[in-house]
Amino acid sequence: MTKPIAIQGIRGSFHHEVAQKYFSSTAEVIECMSFDSAVDNLLQHQTDSMVMALENSIAGSIIPNYALIDNHNLSIVGEYYLDIQHNLMALKGETLATIKEVHSHPMALLQCKVFFKDYPHIKLVEAKDTAEVAKQVSKDNIKGIAAIASKNAASLYQLDILAESIQTIKHNETRFVIVRRENNNLERKGINKASLKFELDHKRGSLATILNVMSDCKLNLTKIQSLPKIETPWKYAFFVDVTFDTHKDYEKAYAIMQIMAENFKVLGEYKNAKT
Amino acid sequence: MTKPIAIQGIRGSFHHEVAQKYFSSTAEVIECMSFDSAVDNLLQHQTDSMVMALENSIAGSIIPNYALIDNHNLSIVGEYYLDIQHNLMALKGETLATIKEVHSHPMALLQCKVFFKDYPHIKLVEAKDTAEVAKQVSKDNIKGIAAIASKNAASLYQLDILAESIQTIKHNETRFVIVRRENNNLERKGINKASLKFELDHKRGSLATILNVMSDCKLNLTKIQSLPKIETPWKYAFFVDVTFDTHKDYEKAYAIMQIMAENFKVLGEYKNAKT
Repeated sequence: MTKPIAIQGIRGSFHHEVAQKYFSSTAEVIECMSFDSAVDNLLQHQTDSMVMALENSIAGSIIPNYALIDNHNLSIVGEYYLDIQHNLMALKGETLATIKEVHSHPMALLQCKVFFKDYPHIKLVEAKDTAEVAKQVSKDNIKGIAAIASKNAASLYQLDILAESIQTIKHNETRFVIVRRENNNLERKGINKASLKFELDHKRGSLATILNVMSDCKLNLTKIQSLPKIETPWKYAFFVDVTFDTHKDYEKAYAIMQIMAENFKVLGEYKNAKT
Repeated sequence: MTKPIAIQGIRGSFHHEVAQKYFSSTAEVIECMSFDSAVDNLLQHQTDSMVMALENSIAGSIIPNYALIDNHNLSIVGEYYLDIQHNLMALKGETLATIKEVHSHPMALLQCKVFFKDYPHIKLVEAKDTAEVAKQVSKDNIKGIAAIASKNAASLYQLDILAESIQTIKHNETRFVIVRRENNNLERKGINKASLKFELDHKRGSLATILNVMSDCKLNLTKIQSLPKIETPWKYAFFVDVTFDTHKDYEKAYAIMQIMAENFKVLGEYKNAKT
């Protein structure tokens, strides 16, 4: 029997939506109040898979989540891109005029700030989670307070949507990954993407040399991010995503990079979700 | 006469500390409640310089701040690295036993979470700003509530430090930049670092080619960050920092890169603060 999937947040959250889209619309989930706690569930075998947001077209990489994967030697086995749409929702019968406060996650409030400039009577209040507010408003029948959350949350908690897609930047894509304890990706056939980490000295041309190997082996770079190593001045860690057409090309590049870069590590091998 | 410097946060904040260290310990500042509002001060000529946090050894780049510089065509004219140390502070006479709540910025609370595990009677409450809480506690003589802020804030608001350096990761370096409206860097002499932005097609080897040019021209890469262009699939923007020994090397690389990369843009030319 499959164990439930660990998600950050509660049912109706964007992580829940990804679990439903990636696995199945009826997928059982474990609601976790933080990424750390979802990882704990994974490490203690309460679950075999978790959903984790990793980067965002507005805010960039969520570096602490890269660190969670790296430090616990977890493995990325899949990815999913979700276009995050924020909707304003409240109890049935409410209108924009009757709403006094909107409670949501600071990031959601920030992304919708422009919309609320037209409604100066609505106070913005920071809350822990987007879907959690929707659940509370519904459960406790709270009048005058609106939530910002997904359409999923509105239907799950039976709230009315007062305004759709209220975020300032309309196309707001977030990349989620499916993470397991080890690289036990069962669908090895379709694999055409890998997430890699390696370290290089601060020496002129060292990164260019590695990228030349990738290019020579027909690997495409879809993401690169340098991060100075805190404990070691002048040493850099690089997080790189590559796509490839044939596994043979990847194996060849892998063999060379393993020799050339320090602490070369595969964070995951999986199917590219963008084709 | 020099105009005051715009900072994010109030006196006693880490931005204030950078303004004092970079300019002068008596530098006048304009306290701004957000990065957006500090930029507004700059655009409306209330100030000629602002201090802006840009990246952090724990959380990575603050992408929205890169976007502020880029979208408003501002210019980085200097940088400063600050080792951020969080201290627990309260009114004189308080001890860890008398403190019931600690109020601070979510990021500061997160970074000090491990410390508070030993003090389960202290409730963590999210607040807007680190120094703001210190000011409030002092001004309103609030008992039982502690702030997490800099030593500067403790001395400025006459609070006692109950515990020093309470953040989990002891070395917590943040890179701040000094930003002006245009590239009117007066100290052109010592310039040996530049922040660049360019775009590339998702074509195999396109980044390697650019990095080869940099390497051939003796430029050292100190940071690289790719960001997918939201509106244009398969097109990537790269934010790159380079250092160089002679301005001639930089000029040569600049001339070539301008031809090879699309929308090549200099975000700033300044003196490397790490030597």
